[in-house]
Amino acid sequence: MELVLVLTLITLLTDFGLHDSYVGIMKGVIAQISPAASVIDLSHDVSPQDIQGASFQLAMAYAHFPQGTIHVVVVDPGVGSSRRAIALRHQGYGFVGPDNGVFSPLLKTLSQVQAVELNNPTYWYQSQPSRTFHGRDIFAPVAAHLSAGIDLSCLGQPVLPQSLCRSLLLSWTRQPQGARGQVQAVDRFGNLITNLPAALLEDLPPTQPWTLEIQHRSIPGHPAYSTVKVGDLLALGGSHGWLEIAVNQGSAQSRLQAKVGDRVDWVFDPLKEEKR
Amino acid sequence: MELVLVLTLITLLTDFGLHDSYVGIMKGVIAQISPAASVIDLSHDVSPQDIQGASFQLAMAYAHFPQGTIHVVVVDPGVGSSRRAIALRHQGYGFVGPDNGVFSPLLKTLSQVQAVELNNPTYWYQSQPSRTFHGRDIFAPVAAHLSAGIDLSCLGQPVLPQSLCRSLLLSWTRQPQGARGQVQAVDRFGNLITNLPAALLEDLPPTQPWTLEIQHRSIPGHPAYSTVKVGDLLALGGSHGWLEIAVNQGSAQSRLQAKVGDRVDWVFDPLKEEKR
Amino acid sequence: MELVLVLTLITLLTDFGLHDSYVGIMKGVIAQISPAASVIDLSHDVSPQDIQGASFQLAMAYAHFPQGTIHVVVVDPGVGSSRRAIALRHQGYGFVGPDNGVFSPLLKTLSQVQAVELNNPTYWYQSQPSRTFHGRDIFAPVAAHLSAGIDLSCLGQPVLPQSLCRSLLLSWTRQPQGARGQVQAVDRFGNLITNLPAALLEDLPPTQPWTLEIQHRSIPGHPAYSTVKVGDLLALGGSHGWLEIAVNQGSAQSRLQAKVGDRVDWVFDPLKEEKR
Repeated sequence: MELVLVLTLITLLTDFGLHDSYVGIMKGVIAQISPAASVIDLSHDVSPQDIQGASFQLAMAYAHFPQGTIHVVVVDPGVGSSRRAIALRHQGYGFVGPDNGVFSPLLKTLSQVQAVELNNPTYWYQSQPSRTFHGRDIFAPVAAHLSAGIDLSCLGQPVLPQSLCRSLLLSWTRQPQGARGQVQAVDRFGNLITNLPAALLEDLPPTQPWTLEIQHRSIPGHPAYSTVKVGDLLALGGSHGWLEIAVNQGSAQSRLQAKVGDRVDWVFDPLKEEKR
Repeated sequence: MELVLVLTLITLLTDFGLHDSYVGIMKGVIAQISPAASVIDLSHDVSPQDIQGASFQLAMAYAHFPQGTIHVVVVDPGVGSSRRAIALRHQGYGFVGPDNGVFSPLLKTLSQVQAVELNNPTYWYQSQPSRTFHGRDIFAPVAAHLSAGIDLSCLGQPVLPQSLCRSLLLSWTRQPQGARGQVQAVDRFGNLITNLPAALLEDLPPTQPWTLEIQHRSIPGHPAYSTVKVGDLLALGGSHGWLEIAVNQGSAQSRLQAKVGDRVDWVFDPLKEEKR
Repeated sequence: MELVLVLTLITLLTDFGLHDSYVGIMKGVIAQISPAASVIDLSHDVSPQDIQGASFQLAMAYAHFPQGTIHVVVVDPGVGSSRRAIALRHQGYGFVGPDNGVFSPLLKTLSQVQAVELNNPTYWYQSQPSRTFHGRDIFAPVAAHLSAGIDLSCLGQPVLPQSLCRSLLLSWTRQPQGARGQVQAVDRFGNLITNLPAALLEDLPPTQPWTLEIQHRSIPGHPAYSTVKVGDLLALGGSHGWLEIAVNQGSAQSRLQAKVGDRVDWVFDPLKEEKR
């Protein structure tokens, strides 16, 4: 006899913080509906109402989970308004949350996205949800039902992917000798993560020097933190797939006083003299 | 053949914070005793020794978990003194923690409460517990044994529910045209959560205006955040069952400099001119 | 028919914080490789690059988990350099992380330690790991494979335990009437945890007074917080096996402005006049 234990995963990404028991309550609701679901926290420390920050965390993380994982995002300044609650299926993953742009990074190739509006109260926590806590009343229970095997199409009416909010597609542009983008996130270590793909480096000859320019400073590219001295600034192709600015065992944010949205230029002109 | 996998849930609510591995250690002890138990964090960010804050988080959360869940609370300034360690059964849930008032919200209908003092060392982590870490030495192992099927009555001698500490029953009073209570908690978003039941609104005619008065200001009642402009103050019936004061996409706490314990009056006199 | 459900445990101890989804990503990678593994957080709030702090948290926690638990530590300022990535087996537990001294407390009795260098890419997340996120690319997948039953010896070449980094073995010394050590950690409550074993107290006659001396102050020893008045300083044998300095319902750190590394003397001269 073969016994297959199917454990399904649900991740949670919110701006609820960990001071209150809001996140715990969502997990309680999930456990009531789908006892075998395993819940993993992506982060609950998204700044209150920071849709862009949540979007970045989701883009960085979602594909590192097993196929079938349901990713729930509750960063929802419009809760109680007419903004839609949605569920998506994309690349074998499920996504549940408000239609406020937080899923923008998934919406580059719309033909691969299936979407529904969550308007079937059968799968809510209570048929009359609160006006302020859809994480508990709609998103957690819908994710639990999805993880327990309910089909996306049961959850509500289909939505044209073209109509989904995509306000947060960060753009960057090619330049004659490089590319121009911006800082899209600052992590716990003070690393400045740009929206410029690390894959840009693959087009360069291996010995070609390159820099990231920010605030009229030119930061030289290196393969790893440890190839510069402790305390030195460096640019590198980061582990999440973007170009980053870092300080070896220090904080680039503190050093440069940089912030999300700051302009960053990637430059690989071999004739340019490096200012280290 | 049918296979039923019984997973039991234990929640943890402490003031241990997440800097130290104290919470992880409690989970390790639980896993040693009850490997199939699943542990969910309610919060570990209760302010050190804030029994009232823990009591509020517990009251808000416990009923959103499956029947049979064991809720453990370790906010325990009296650890090592003669305060009793107790376990309760109430409404199909188990509760484990110190007898210091933290369980007050459960003790309104004493006839439904079963209680024991945890004085049977058989179910402790070590027969000689430390004087300072009963979370590891008594509360976590007792919760694990409960979740593994040990009966409450095995854990120690019965306690009369009437003798349990109930210091924290927050009271509010009816007034001629409303009710008087207080702020019982401030959440991560700066929402001021009063101890006045949101159910009070059900007695009003639907078109009846009402306000919450705090610090000589009168905050108008609304159905949801989004029915006022971004940045405006509003009062509303919150998702946890209490009247709340909020700012749409902002912090009522910052705006009003209010704190736990501040007096709040609910007023529904239709003749009263609203000062918005 | 008997059915044994083997659940294996993995703990994570990092300096990643909870703002970013780095920890969640490690859990996603583990779930891909070892779906039945259960992951418990020890702490992710180790100060960035604080190897000593991580070492202390690990020493305090590891033995409170079931035999077979895999403990992963990612506090890794040398990531991307030539520092070795290692896995150890010791006392029935597995350990995975960088060879930078973080495992020093386990390396007192080297004959009981088995160690390998993680140089077999078969068990990595991708055969070409990033230069900056070995938590995701090497440590999490290796721990998942260990928990799924892969033998330590498959993960890479054996390493002589004598060659492992042991920079952090904190030492203390016997003195004529006591012992001299230092503050090795400060916890969330402001308790100062020394590196002096609480077992020293077992050698004293029960009525013998003793003190901890720090900053020319002499703190009297007591059996529990509650044997002094609220707000008073005390010394005690802490629940983790070390002598501690605390304030009943307060913070010894704030009171004394003490920090990790401060010298502490344990004194039990019965003729010494106590300065309380």
